[in-house]
Amino acid sequence: MKEIKIGVLGATGAVGREMVKVLAERSLPISELRLLASEKSVGTKINFNGNAVAVQKADENCFDGLDIVLGAVSNELAKKFAPFITKAGCVFIDNSSAFRMDENTPLVIPEINPADAYKHNGIIANPNCSTIITLMAVNRLNAISPIRSMVVSTYQAVSGAGAGGPTELDNQLQAISNGKKIENKVFQHQIAYNLIPHIGSFCENGYTTEEMKMQNESRKILHLPDLVVSCTCVRVPITRSHSISANVVFENKISVEEAKTAIKNADGCVLADEPQNNLYPMPLIASDQNLVYVGRIRKDLTNENGLTLFCSGDQIRKGAATNAVQIAELLLTE
Amino acid sequence: MKEIKIGVLGATGAVGREMVKVLAERSLPISELRLLASEKSVGTKINFNGNAVAVQKADENCFDGLDIVLGAVSNELAKKFAPFITKAGCVFIDNSSAFRMDENTPLVIPEINPADAYKHNGIIANPNCSTIITLMAVNRLNAISPIRSMVVSTYQAVSGAGAGGPTELDNQLQAISNGKKIENKVFQHQIAYNLIPHIGSFCENGYTTEEMKMQNESRKILHLPDLVVSCTCVRVPITRSHSISANVVFENKISVEEAKTAIKNADGCVLADEPQNNLYPMPLIASDQNLVYVGRIRKDLTNENGLTLFCSGDQIRKGAATNAVQIAELLLTE
Repeated sequence: MKEIKIGVLGATGAVGREMVKVLAERSLPISELRLLASEKSVGTKINFNGNAVAVQKADENCFDGLDIVLGAVSNELAKKFAPFITKAGCVFIDNSSAFRMDENTPLVIPEINPADAYKHNGIIANPNCSTIITLMAVNRLNAISPIRSMVVSTYQAVSGAGAGGPTELDNQLQAISNGKKIENKVFQHQIAYNLIPHIGSFCENGYTTEEMKMQNESRKILHLPDLVVSCTCVRVPITRSHSISANVVFENKISVEEAKTAIKNADGCVLADEPQNNLYPMPLIASDQNLVYVGRIRKDLTNENGLTLFCSGDQIRKGAATNAVQIAELLLTE
Repeated sequence: MKEIKIGVLGATGAVGREMVKVLAERSLPISELRLLASEKSVGTKINFNGNAVAVQKADENCFDGLDIVLGAVSNELAKKFAPFITKAGCVFIDNSSAFRMDENTPLVIPEINPADAYKHNGIIANPNCSTIITLMAVNRLNAISPIRSMVVSTYQAVSGAGAGGPTELDNQLQAISNGKKIENKVFQHQIAYNLIPHIGSFCENGYTTEEMKMQNESRKILHLPDLVVSCTCVRVPITRSHSISANVVFENKISVEEAKTAIKNADGCVLADEPQNNLYPMPLIASDQNLVYVGRIRKDLTNENGLTLFCSGDQIRKGAATNAVQIAELLLTE
């Protein structure tokens, strides 16, 4: 495996910091790690393999000499920096949604469509976090019989909104416990002891942008252009890991036992489906690790070709940082 | 309206106490309120219309002279006391699931199937909380075109497990905040910062008893024996009000506008569907009141005869106590 020089753009955010952790954990052959962020973070030091690496300012010329840049910034900043990253000859693995639906940009989950990664024109997009977790759960079933449709409801952790999410939740819990006034800046409403069925912005059809990603990104990743997905995204007052309740209809019937075996053998998945032992996917067991937990697998009572399941995955890890690092690993084996 | 003597069996529990509140609020013509509970609660005083009413011991002979008994006890106790309640000539409005599927017992939501209440043989069953909230949201749509199937995912508050649920959640939040050890007695796992996709006990088909109620009780209440419902029930770390994400398929197509108008005009519902103003159902606005909030109404992208919606309702109020009191009101107008 060749040595690489890698940059992390947005290194001080929740996803950026996790990217640095995952790069270290997975022992990528890194000869240089360049941490890039906005001016206000310059000088911040982040631990990488025991070394305190200082954050540098992200600007037009900061990418020179790098092979790969992992992006953990907003759509706006991703669009702004992309031309400079590619001009510098780097591959940009972007966690924003800016390029995901661009037809010249591959959208990749390494366990699902690794070959797509090699068709890049300088940018590879990392999919939406809930989409990654859901598709990890259903991918091996799709290989048995193609998915026709999915009805999906999500339970999304506050850290999906960035590092400010958990702080806001905890501040609100503390304020309520002390009888103080509650403030909300990150979320549209109080999130402590509440649910908010509003993630992203609303589209004309009444779905949110976050909800439509589940259909549109799934079509591209699974190469199923006719797939239909009806998704409801809900923010829940937990810190970490997204969970998804999914009813999945296939072209042909898949038995529950067949599904369990397929998921048990799926790379990146854990079959957690022993109701008699109170074992099923939960955020508590899915957090701070890279696997997607899948369980509660049973027949969909509304469709004989359907299955119902519940899955949980760490949306900062497999839903973002880990998936991006895995894409980088694909490029190393090119 | 005639005057009635009314008993509350299980008066010191979460639902029993709420029944007393609702009886006072709705100004039922009560000439006697008898509060009944186990021996350990005898003497406990509960406020009713400014009077402190002492709890009496529930035993075989405690129902004499009453017209109606509202039950807020376990299935086991409901079955134990039912013969004595009916023998005393009272009507038993039971919130447990003991008699819900019994063919001689009506299962009633007053806004939906009030006529069924009058066919009782001494017992009328109050439906499951999530089922009440879901059916309140979809009933008027079912009147436009019969429901064929529903895919439902719930977000259920900890108070659904009784008064011990909120205490356990708050104790765990406090323990985590103070770095102390977490204990769980009410729930199968830690519920603070977690989700538990396990409510009720597991059936052979992999669904829980709570999940199967959504199909079986809905069939009986809506008089739709062929209705199929695939339900996933999830406990979420919020104190009060259950929320439901539902994809509902009808015999014929119903437009989003038609659905909104129907729900706006439905007794017991509030149409909360102004995404542009960040208005949609949430536990925070649905708690401590009797109406079911319905919103996020849009086309089901997986079925042209389907609609997708989100609803929230106070499961201790409309999902239990208020619905039971409304059934009592029906009997008063007999």
